[in-house]
Parts: sequence; structure tokens; C-alpha cells
Amino acid sequence: MKRISDYSAQMEKSIREINLPGGILDTLYQPISYALASGGKRLRPSLLLMAADCFGGKATEAFSAAAGIEVFHNFTLLHDDVMDNSDTRRGRQSVYAKWGVNAAILSGDTMLTLATQLMTEVDDSLLRAVLDTFNSMAIRVYEGQRLDMDFETSDNVTLEDYIRMIMDKTGSLIGAACKIGALIGGASEKDADKMFEYGMMLGVAFQIQDDWLDVFGDSTTFGKPIGGDINNNKKSYLMLRGAAIGGPEAEALSDAMKLPAGDTKVKVVTRLYEKMNLSAICRQEISSYSAKALTALKATSLSDDDKEAFRAVVEKLTGRKK
Amino acid sequence: MKRISDYSAQMEKSIREINLPGGILDTLYQPISYALASGGKRLRPSLLLMAADCFGGKATEAFSAAAGIEVFHNFTLLHDDVMDNSDTRRGRQSVYAKWGVNAAILSGDTMLTLATQLMTEVDDSLLRAVLDTFNSMAIRVYEGQRLDMDFETSDNVTLEDYIRMIMDKTGSLIGAACKIGALIGGASEKDADKMFEYGMMLGVAFQIQDDWLDVFGDSTTFGKPIGGDINNNKKSYLMLRGAAIGGPEAEALSDAMKLPAGDTKVKVVTRLYEKMNLSAICRQEISSYSAKALTALKATSLSDDDKEAFRAVVEKLTGRKK
Repeated sequence: MKRISDYSAQMEKSIREINLPGGILDTLYQPISYALASGGKRLRPSLLLMAADCFGGKATEAFSAAAGIEVFHNFTLLHDDVMDNSDTRRGRQSVYAKWGVNAAILSGDTMLTLATQLMTEVDDSLLRAVLDTFNSMAIRVYEGQRLDMDFETSDNVTLEDYIRMIMDKTGSLIGAACKIGALIGGASEKDADKMFEYGMMLGVAFQIQDDWLDVFGDSTTFGKPIGGDINNNKKSYLMLRGAAIGGPEAEALSDAMKLPAGDTKVKVVTRLYEKMNLSAICRQEISSYSAKALTALKATSLSDDDKEAFRAVVEKLTGRKK
Repeated sequence: MKRISDYSAQMEKSIREINLPGGILDTLYQPISYALASGGKRLRPSLLLMAADCFGGKATEAFSAAAGIEVFHNFTLLHDDVMDNSDTRRGRQSVYAKWGVNAAILSGDTMLTLATQLMTEVDDSLLRAVLDTFNSMAIRVYEGQRLDMDFETSDNVTLEDYIRMIMDKTGSLIGAACKIGALIGGASEKDADKMFEYGMMLGVAFQIQDDWLDVFGDSTTFGKPIGGDINNNKKSYLMLRGAAIGGPEAEALSDAMKLPAGDTKVKVVTRLYEKMNLSAICRQEISSYSAKALTALKATSLSDDDKEAFRAVVEKLTGRKK
């Protein structure tokens, strides 16, 4: 059976082989090499390759597009780190912290165009479909990031708003990776759309899992300090769901958000989440979106073996500890 | 005879008609509408339309690509204004000053993808050629902006470096506008490349003219305060050419750059430029690049009438007072 992990080594190699000029332009391209060398899960390009492989045995024809998806993802991280004022990324200095705002903006812009160029390295017959999927996804990602920033200062964010935001910001990119891989593999339009749906729902489950890990995860495996969302008063799934439950605990939660950032705040809020049974509610929601991903997957014409390969990704990601 | 000004009204209309979502996403799209409504010369899209018209009577088929070039140009302005810390743009607040860094970054990113989407609205037969031209141009523009920023803190910038930088940052965009218009009009590859060369050389002449206007222009028609480059110690064509001449005036120029920003500094530097005959030398250089543009134009298969239309653009732009 195919396994997602079989594709990540190939992706590391493809990404290392992206040819960037140097010399006088090191100031533009060095931050790009640095960002791309920082690892990460390579989830999106690996899904793209596995989809191309499962639908038509065409993983090798999908290398450039897979690299393009990863370059795009890293472009968004460069700009997000400026917007969120984040000094660290994957346990190292962010490009923003290491080279400053201007480098993060301009090298990020360059990555977006590089990603688009990599996307054009498909057969003429697929060029329009692949680019349309890629560009529409990119617009959704920006819209999601905008909503995410606007929610920080808004007092009436609903759970529905939140789901829309993570569909745009996180889900659409994973969905597009799966769809573009399917298109390159030769999938029908219907199958390609189902793979988008699969990736989208997987992305939502993945993001809610991230919110859950922020509170109930283990800092050594999660790679980020626990309680970051709580200390930043981030409108996470847990926070919005807690507010929606109402009652005295929701009021206590609202009060607790006014505490200064620190261990006490994290403890008080976590305690309230526990009283409201939010860990279990959150796990339930992750299962629900995972099930939606699997429903979309089942509706494709993939073989049972290949469906199993994509099902295993859902299990791995929603059971992850980091 | 066709005139470049005949196309700008149509461009204003096409740009107003770009359909941007509103509602909850106003925070993303309002800065884009604002930037696009701020006018400017619409030089690049008008050149694109005129090229499509001259090569094949296909101006109407080029509306989307022309709008795309203008959206791209404005995207670079949004990000440049953050990088250069510029509060004003075309006599109004810049997006950066009005909505802040994050809006300028994210709405700018959105404009880059919107521009790419507009570029894809060409016939399938042209899609790859148009996108390749557009994406290669975009990379050159980022490289030019990077060099421009790096030159600010470098002590050994040569005139040759400067010409390379403005070819990348300014020339390539005007060149790509002309080439994409020619491609849509149905031009041969050779003609399309000659039109790129025409636009590239026109862009270099245009930029040196801009440097000249900064010193010898009239602030009421130029739209910017005179001496901005001098006060910012910008390595303009005049400054680098003056340094290259050497001798006692070049030394005096080097000393004058150390003066604090202000009217005195502008006067002293302008005086030295005059002593070194730099106004005439600069005008000579503008003529030389204009001649290169016309040589490329002559090598195309355009009719004499259409060549005259493009020749008039060179004359208009290098004789401009703003």
C-alpha cells in the first residue's frame, strides 16, 4: 500500500533542487533557501504526489507542482510572521526576525511568483485547470488570513465564522494540493472535486486538532509552548465553543480572558475548559470533520487500497501529538 | 493614427469594472479599490492595449491582461511603500499609511494573485507564452527592488549596476506590457521580443527622466517635492554619474551628501550637478535610451503609422514634466 511518508523524502529532494540564483542577489534568495530548508511536515506536497500517483501513477510528473504548493505554503508563513509579529518558526528564527520586514515581504513575493511558475510546469492540457485551482485557492488563503486578523479585535465572532475562516486559511490549501495532484494523475473532474473536499475537511480537522493541542498537548512533542492561544486571547475553537455553551462557566471564561498572560491564566482557562467538557467536545468535532473527509474520499473512483492510503493520513493527522 | 491617450479612458473603465467582493471582506478589498482608483498614467496597460491593437486589431481581447498589468504595478507600489516607509502616493495617503503594514502586505498579495488571474483570461493558445512573460517579468521586478534597497547601504554602486537595477525594476514591466499586448495581437515571436526591447529601453529612459525631474523639474507639475532623491542620498543616475566623473567636484559632491537633509543640501548638490554639466549629460543619456527603443521599434513589422504611434509615446514620456 502507498504511504504518505514515502513521498516526503522525494519532496525534500525536489525542494533542495529548486534552482535559486545567488551572487549579488543573495539578499533576495538566501531567505528563500532558509525558509524552504526548515523542514516541516511537507504534508501538502506529499498529498499532491500521492494523489497524482493514485489516480494515474504520475508522481514524477507532479514534482514541480508539489514543490510549487510547498513554496506557496512557505510564502504565506513568511508574510504571516510579519503580520503576527512572530520571531520563531519551526523552532528557528523566522525570516522576519532574522532578516527584517523588508526581506520577509520581498522574498515572500518572490516565492509566490516562483510557486506560480512551478505550477505552470504541467502539460498544456492541464495548465488552465491547475492554475485556476491554484489561484482560487490563493485568494481564499488571503481571505482566511484577513478574517483571522479581523477576529482578533472583534467581539462577536461565531463558531460558524471560525469554521469559514479555517476552511479558507487552512482547508483550501490542503484541498487544492489534493485536487491538483488528482488532475495531474488524470482524475475526472468529479474525482478531482471530491479530492478537494477530502483535503478541505482534513484541513479543518487538522486545524481544530491544532487548537486542541495548544491546550491539551505536550509541549515537548507539540513544538510550541502550551497555552499560547490562551495567552494571546486567540479566538480558538475551544474559546468560541465555550462561549457558545453559555452559563456561569462561559462568564467565568470571559472574565479569565482578562487576566494578564502567564501560567495562572493558562491554568484557570484550562480548568474551565475541563469543567465544560471541551476536550471531549473538541475531539468529537475533529472526528466529525474527519468523517466528512472520508465520505468525500469514498465517493471517488479510487481503488480500496488507495482509499486506505488517504484514510491513514486522516488517522495520522488527527491522532498526532505535534 | 492611434494615440496612447485613446486607450487610457478605456483602461479606467476596465479597472473600475474589476469585480471585488465586499461585506465581511471589506478589510481586504477596500485598500485594493482605493489603490486602483488612484489614477496614475495607466501607461503600462495603455501600451499593452495599443500593442494588441496595432498587431492585430485586438484591443478588446486584451482588456483583462491590460487590467492585470495595472493591478500588478499597483501591487508593487503597495509593498514598496511599506519597504520604503512612504506615507504618500500620487498625492494621497499610501495604503500603508492609511490602513497599516498588515493591510498593505495582505491586500498586496491578493493583488498579485488577482493580476495573475487576469493574465489567464487569454486564449488557450496564448496562455503559456503570456504567463511565462508575466512571471519572468515579476521575478525581475523583485530583483530590481532588492538591488535598489541594497544600493542604499552600499558604497560601491556603479552606473552599470544602476542601469541593471532600473532595467529590472522599471524596464521589464513596461517591456512585458508591450510584449504581452503584441502576443495577444498575434505578433510573431520576433516582433513580440522587439516590443519587449522597445518597452525595456523606454522604461530606462523614463526612469532616468524621473531622476532628472527630481532635480531639474518643477514641483507643481512633477507632483513630488524637488530634491527628494538628494535629501534621501538616493543613488540616482545623476549622483552616480557625478561620482564617476571624478575630480574635485565629485569630492565636493561626496561631502555635500553628508549634509543634513534640507533646502541647503538640495541647493548645494544642484549647484554641483550644474557645474559638472550633469543636466545635459543626463538628457543625452535619455536620448540615447530613447534611440535604443526606436531602433527596436523599427525592427518590427508594424506599419509606419503604428510605429509612429509608439514613437510618439517615447517623445511624450521623455519630454514630460511630471
